[in-house]
Amino acid sequence: MKIDGKDYRTIWFENNIVKIIDQTKLPHQFIIKDLKTVKDAINAIKVMEVRGAPLIGATAAYGLVLSILENNDQSFLKKSAEDLIKSRPTAINLKWAIDRMLKKLKGVNSDKILDIAINEAKEICDEDIKFCESIGLNGLKVIEDIYNKKKDTVNILTHCNAGWLATINWGTATSPIYHAHKNGIPVHVWADETRPRNQGANLTSFELNEEGIKNTIIADNTGGILMQRGQVDMCIVGTDRTLSNGDVCNKVGTYLKALAAHDNKIPFYVALSSSTIDWDIKDFKDIPIEERNSEELSHVEGLDENNKIKKVLIYPNKSKAMNLAFDITPAKYITGLITEKGICDASKEGLAKLFK
Amino acid sequence: MKIDGKDYRTIWFENNIVKIIDQTKLPHQFIIKDLKTVKDAINAIKVMEVRGAPLIGATAAYGLVLSILENNDQSFLKKSAEDLIKSRPTAINLKWAIDRMLKKLKGVNSDKILDIAINEAKEICDEDIKFCESIGLNGLKVIEDIYNKKKDTVNILTHCNAGWLATINWGTATSPIYHAHKNGIPVHVWADETRPRNQGANLTSFELNEEGIKNTIIADNTGGILMQRGQVDMCIVGTDRTLSNGDVCNKVGTYLKALAAHDNKIPFYVALSSSTIDWDIKDFKDIPIEERNSEELSHVEGLDENNKIKKVLIYPNKSKAMNLAFDITPAKYITGLITEKGICDASKEGLAKLFK
Repeated sequence: MKIDGKDYRTIWFENNIVKIIDQTKLPHQFIIKDLKTVKDAINAIKVMEVRGAPLIGATAAYGLVLSILENNDQSFLKKSAEDLIKSRPTAINLKWAIDRMLKKLKGVNSDKILDIAINEAKEICDEDIKFCESIGLNGLKVIEDIYNKKKDTVNILTHCNAGWLATINWGTATSPIYHAHKNGIPVHVWADETRPRNQGANLTSFELNEEGIKNTIIADNTGGILMQRGQVDMCIVGTDRTLSNGDVCNKVGTYLKALAAHDNKIPFYVALSSSTIDWDIKDFKDIPIEERNSEELSHVEGLDENNKIKKVLIYPNKSKAMNLAFDITPAKYITGLITEKGICDASKEGLAKLFK
Repeated sequence: MKIDGKDYRTIWFENNIVKIIDQTKLPHQFIIKDLKTVKDAINAIKVMEVRGAPLIGATAAYGLVLSILENNDQSFLKKSAEDLIKSRPTAINLKWAIDRMLKKLKGVNSDKILDIAINEAKEICDEDIKFCESIGLNGLKVIEDIYNKKKDTVNILTHCNAGWLATINWGTATSPIYHAHKNGIPVHVWADETRPRNQGANLTSFELNEEGIKNTIIADNTGGILMQRGQVDMCIVGTDRTLSNGDVCNKVGTYLKALAAHDNKIPFYVALSSSTIDWDIKDFKDIPIEERNSEELSHVEGLDENNKIKKVLIYPNKSKAMNLAFDITPAKYITGLITEKGICDASKEGLAKLFK
C-alpha cells in the first residue's frame, strides 16, 4: 500500500539485508531500517519497530535467514529460533513462522540452507499477502450488505492496527475496508486511538490517510457512546491468537468494544489468516498475556511547537502504572471470523468447517 | 483532603474573591487561581480549571456571587445565570445549583442579596461535603463486606476522577475508599487513565498518592483483562447526571467498564449525592452529550527532560479526531447507587425509596 504516493511492503529482503519500516517512528518520521543480524530482528520485534501478528511472524522468518547468514551452524540456528520465539509472548504467528521455517530447513545441506530459508521467508510473506487479499474479498461482502441496506456511508470501528502495517500488505481488518473503497462503497473508519502506544492513531489513521480513506481518531473510551448513538455500523478488528473454540486474543481493549457491540446489536468481526490460529491451547486463561514496560503509559512522544520530536512525562511523578498488552474476546461476542477461506462462526465447528 | 501534607478544599471564598485549585495544571503544577468576575467562573468551568459535577455546581453558585459583586442588578443576575448554565451541557449540577441560588435570591432586597448569595453558595459547599462524607460511610460497608470475605487487599477500579477534586472534599467515588483506608482496610485502586484529559492519572492517582493510598494507573483499555484475570473486586465511579430510572451519564468510557464488570460478575457501583439526579429527563437519549475540542485528543501536555511543561502533537498531521465527553451506563449494569441517604437499586423504585 501507499506512503506518500509510493507503494511499499512492510518488510523485504535486499542484498542480504532485511529492510523494515520503523513503526516506532510513525507517523512523524518515515524511516526504513536495516536488520543485519538475528539480534537486530529480535530487537525490532521487542521494541515494536515491527508489530502486528503476521508481520512479527514474517520478521521472525527473516530473522532465521539472518541467523544463517551470520553463522551457518545448526546449533546457532536452534538458539536463534528459541530467542526469536521468546521476543514477544502473545502473538502465535511468531512460533508458527519459526516452526514452519525449521520444518523446511530440517536436514537441509548447509550449502543449500540459505537459499531455501530465503525462499521460505519470502513464501511466508507472499502467502500472507494472498491471504490478506482473500480476507478483503470475503469481508467486502459484509460491508456491501450493510451498504446495500443503508445506502449511505458505512461507519466501521476498528481497534489498534490490523492494517497493512501489521501484515505485509493489505492488512487483515483493513483489507475489507480497502476493497470496499476500491469498489466505490463509501466508508468511514472510527480509529480507536489504542493507548498506550496509540497504534490506532499512529498507524491505522496514518495508513488510511495515505490511501485516501476517511477516518476519525477517537479515544478508546468513545466507541460505546458512538454505538449507543447509532454511529457505528460494524466493527472489524485483528487478532494475535485465535483459539480453536473461536476465542480471540487481541490488543487490550478489543474485548470492551466487543461487549459494547453486542449490547448495541452491532456486528463485530475478527479478521485473520489461518496463521493466527492456535490449535493447541484450549482455555484462554493459558494464553500468555504480555506485560510491557509502564513507561509506554507514563511517557508520550510527539511533535513540539518547533516540529521536534519530544518525549514528555504525563503522569504524577509519584504514580506507578501497569501495562498489559492484550485481552480476550470470548467467541460468543464475535459475529464472525473473516478468514482467507471465507467467513465462519467463531466456534470449534465454524473453524473446523474451513480448516483441517 | 491533602496536597503536600496540607488540607485543602477545591473552592473557597476569601475577600470577595473565589479561590480554586487550577486543575488543568495538575499534577505538574499546583496553582491557586482567583476568580473575580462571573466571566472568570464561566471560563474556569469551560476550560475545566474546575470540573466534576459537584464542583461545577459549587463554582456556578459562586459565579452568581461574583455576578452580584460586579453588578447588583436583576437583569445582570439573570444573564449570568443563563451564561453559567450554558458553560457546560452535561452535568446536571450546574442547573441544580443555579436554580437553588435563584430560588433563594428571588425577591430579596438588593442591599441583602450579596450576603444571602454568599451564605447559600457556602451552604451548597458545606452540604456537598456532608453528603460526600455520608456517601463514604455508606460505601464503606460494601468495601468492608468484600474485605471480610477476601481477607486481603480490596482492588477497586475507578474511571476518571470522582475524587475530592471533583467535589468540595472527600469525593463521591473515592469517599468510600478514603473511609476504608481510615478504617484500616487495605485497598488498592486501579485508576483508569481516562483519555483524552487523563483525569484518572492527573487527578485520581495524584490525590490518592497525596493521601497515601496505593494505586496503579492503567490504560482505559485494561480494565477488561484485569477483570478477566480476577484482579478487580469492585468498581466505583461517579456520575454527571443520574436519571430517575437509574441510568447514569458519566465520563466517556464508564459504560465500557460497566459492561465488563457485568460480564465478569463484579459489583459496579455509582456514587452520587442527590444533586446529581435529574428528575425530569426520562430517556437517556435526551441527555446532551458534550463534544469538546479535538485538540484535547491530538495534543498532550507533560514534562520534558528539563522538567519544563511541553505540549506535543501526537497524531498524524492529516488526521482528524472527535471528542465526546460522556456516555450512558444503563441501570441494568449498575449494582447499586451509593448516595448520601444510603445504597439503593439503580431503578425508579430504588431512588424513590430514598428520595422524594
